[in-house]
Amino acid sequence: MFIDRNNCFSACILPIFLSYVGLILSSFYSEVSRSEVELFPPGLEKKSVEHAISLRDQALKKSDAFALVESLTTEIGPRLAGTGAEARAREWAVRHLSEIGFDSVVIEPFKIKAWVRGRESAVLTKPSEQGLAVTALGGSVSTSEVGLEAELVVFQSLADLESVADDSLVGKIVYVGHAMRPTQDGSSYGAFVPLRRLGASVAAAKGAIGIVIRSIGTDYHRSPNTGQLNYVKGVRKIPAGALSNPDADQIERLWEKKIPMRMRLVLMSHTREAAESGNVIAEIQGRESPWELVVIGAHLDSWDLGTGAIDDGAGVGITMAAAKLILDAGKRPRRTIRLVLWGAEEQGIHGGKAYLERHRTELRNHMLASESDFGAGLIWQITSKVSDEGQPVIDLMGTLLNPLGIVQGGKDIAVSGPDLYPMINAGLPSFSFRQDGTRYFDVHHTANDTLDKIDSKALDQNVAAYAVFAWLAAETTVNFWSMNEPN
Amino acid sequence: MFIDRNNCFSACILPIFLSYVGLILSSFYSEVSRSEVELFPPGLEKKSVEHAISLRDQALKKSDAFALVESLTTEIGPRLAGTGAEARAREWAVRHLSEIGFDSVVIEPFKIKAWVRGRESAVLTKPSEQGLAVTALGGSVSTSEVGLEAELVVFQSLADLESVADDSLVGKIVYVGHAMRPTQDGSSYGAFVPLRRLGASVAAAKGAIGIVIRSIGTDYHRSPNTGQLNYVKGVRKIPAGALSNPDADQIERLWEKKIPMRMRLVLMSHTREAAESGNVIAEIQGRESPWELVVIGAHLDSWDLGTGAIDDGAGVGITMAAAKLILDAGKRPRRTIRLVLWGAEEQGIHGGKAYLERHRTELRNHMLASESDFGAGLIWQITSKVSDEGQPVIDLMGTLLNPLGIVQGGKDIAVSGPDLYPMINAGLPSFSFRQDGTRYFDVHHTANDTLDKIDSKALDQNVAAYAVFAWLAAETTVNFWSMNEPN
Repeated sequence: MFIDRNNCFSACILPIFLSYVGLILSSFYSEVSRSEVELFPPGLEKKSVEHAISLRDQALKKSDAFALVESLTTEIGPRLAGTGAEARAREWAVRHLSEIGFDSVVIEPFKIKAWVRGRESAVLTKPSEQGLAVTALGGSVSTSEVGLEAELVVFQSLADLESVADDSLVGKIVYVGHAMRPTQDGSSYGAFVPLRRLGASVAAAKGAIGIVIRSIGTDYHRSPNTGQLNYVKGVRKIPAGALSNPDADQIERLWEKKIPMRMRLVLMSHTREAAESGNVIAEIQGRESPWELVVIGAHLDSWDLGTGAIDDGAGVGITMAAAKLILDAGKRPRRTIRLVLWGAEEQGIHGGKAYLERHRTELRNHMLASESDFGAGLIWQITSKVSDEGQPVIDLMGTLLNPLGIVQGGKDIAVSGPDLYPMINAGLPSFSFRQDGTRYFDVHHTANDTLDKIDSKALDQNVAAYAVFAWLAAETTVNFWSMNEPN
Repeated sequence: MFIDRNNCFSACILPIFLSYVGLILSSFYSEVSRSEVELFPPGLEKKSVEHAISLRDQALKKSDAFALVESLTTEIGPRLAGTGAEARAREWAVRHLSEIGFDSVVIEPFKIKAWVRGRESAVLTKPSEQGLAVTALGGSVSTSEVGLEAELVVFQSLADLESVADDSLVGKIVYVGHAMRPTQDGSSYGAFVPLRRLGASVAAAKGAIGIVIRSIGTDYHRSPNTGQLNYVKGVRKIPAGALSNPDADQIERLWEKKIPMRMRLVLMSHTREAAESGNVIAEIQGRESPWELVVIGAHLDSWDLGTGAIDDGAGVGITMAAAKLILDAGKRPRRTIRLVLWGAEEQGIHGGKAYLERHRTELRNHMLASESDFGAGLIWQITSKVSDEGQPVIDLMGTLLNPLGIVQGGKDIAVSGPDLYPMINAGLPSFSFRQDGTRYFDVHHTANDTLDKIDSKALDQNVAAYAVFAWLAAETTVNFWSMNEPN
């Protein structure tokens, strides 16, 4: 299992190789593209397409993305929503965005219920006292200082837990495993994350007093994976934590040997009502239709265990560097490019919801948006769902980005970053750059989410893609909304 | 750095590949070796050499090593010296060794001063509050509950720290880095371990009130590396810890940016005088010269952070399985094979010292010894220093093990396991199987030292080597001591 789950080839070597292949191909492409840009789609001039190519090539040479992630994760570190650290991250963003030279930089504050981790430990007291690596799930209610101690009952899946009789787990602590595997598109995360979200309420409904789950992650280190849970209304709230994969294995081996187990579980936390969070918004004003908006961005908050490097310092660096590249090139697009650094994503997409709340009246002015929130791996696919009129512009993005190893995928669906869900649910056309997530869940939401996991060349490929996206979507005159209603 | 330090090819793929190559070659060798065994060296009969080949091939098919490591690390878990967990490990060993069918199994108890870890944390309070992954070095004096808080001063090496003026660090906490790199023979560990052993006393001599060092390890995870320190007599004892490599990077980046830092450091621990430890000793009685001894073994204790899988559960499994193979084959060697599972190695080679103390009068009866204490990687080299008379037997081991990817190295030196140092310093001929240690220091002495890091095929190669070693050294009549004095 060590080998299977820690294969660095796909995580490190392959992306770098692809990145260099992309670089070589792209220099070649710059030569041949002069003829192809004659075929520009409606709403774009030849020189606009040439500028997109120039931005792309500039990013591939070197962008500021890595330096920005380094600065954010080193000088601020972890940025838990609603804390002083997240506030310092907003100040950091305002300072850097102002220095970069955006036309406007503002903070839009909002209030959240903020959850803060306390002391935590899990100890097997039977069969032989041994400490386990545990962390509370975000939003978990607190145990007392002393914690819980009870028999540990093992289930291999959420379905197994659901299948037992009501009241069959009275007074017990429950362990639940799962079969998540690394996948390029991260789909195995989606398949098993319901265990993290709902496990506590399912266990409580059967009478359990606490739950520990196998980390929703694919690494083999003693760094458990946190993430938000959702208590089901009307069901008793019980403390919930995650064990690292090696610790989960330990529990399952003892269970297979039919050795009875007891666990002492301390998961302390507290919640602050009306804590301050906020979105940071910076704009490059459009030259012709400044009220029309193209949004790129990432979330500024992170979980507390690591320094939020891949989640989502990488996205912050990628989108800030892409906007900076457009600014530095000195050409203003037709439409406004709005960079949004959302707050408090991790604890419930608070920033995305607050943004829609405040900007609902100008929703139809939002032409297209993309959030970078899937780590620091290479982009391999574009998916989108836009108007027929807008499709040729997306196709052009695909053509220009193909030498970077990016292919076009589905045109009737796009799963964008979480902070865009509220707007997309309200009708915003959707667009997504899909990144290689094979090893994303090795470090996502763990203490290992630190700067050393990021390859700067892979970030530059992302910056190239975001610069091309933002420039072309803001430069074209086409409408990406399917129904052309007045704003 | 992530890529450089986490290359799984050498850690996972290469050893397995070599292991399979070894398997294929060895089946071939079994055919051709019939002629070669005619050339057996003095003191060995043809059938004894054939039996060694048979033991080797049996081990390569499948040994009990992995099952034993699994049982020890799962059912007992961490085994800190002088604790109840180490006592349970001795009981575990006695139970399993008796079941295997050794002629005798005894515990030889001894007392140690036992160090036990308490609560620990390191927080940068300036420039921006962030928690760091820290662990106390073994033997560190305790801070108070509140801990220390002071300015953090950065040095890049022990030499840098040594070079500053006396009293220049009064009231400061000191950070010291180093440049350890992964090496096949682990030599980079030896080069930098003086920082762990002596850093606290060097810093204290300059007036520092605490020290944190970069982990003496090569991984890129938030799991700091513990290990024993040595306070220099007459120098004030200050608390000492290690930061994980990503945290050490964080400190060094802030220092390079010339950003002042303050640290709050809690490293609690306590020491128990006259705690009980012990060596577990099991024998296969020799058929002709039972008073002559060949020793194999490993240490039973571990640090407390992981479950002691590669350090040294692997060695316990390898040597127990090798002895079991010899027992199961039903042929008794001329000399006695003594399996020793040493106690309390990590905190000062207490088991090795106690063993020599108790067995000093029979030291000259010890013909040859080998301890397995360098993880679970493949053996790649034999080194030894034995009599001219004994050398042909070592050469024969080399010939029989060559198809397993094992070559013969130096014949005038051997660095054996630590528990053998006392006997080797007292004159015992030395022998060493050197294992691939390229990735050993990724997990050694960290929370990540867990079962999932072990490949069972690599363990089987080790078992084959130990079985051949123990059988031939116990079967031959030659004396490995250079001077043939009477016992």
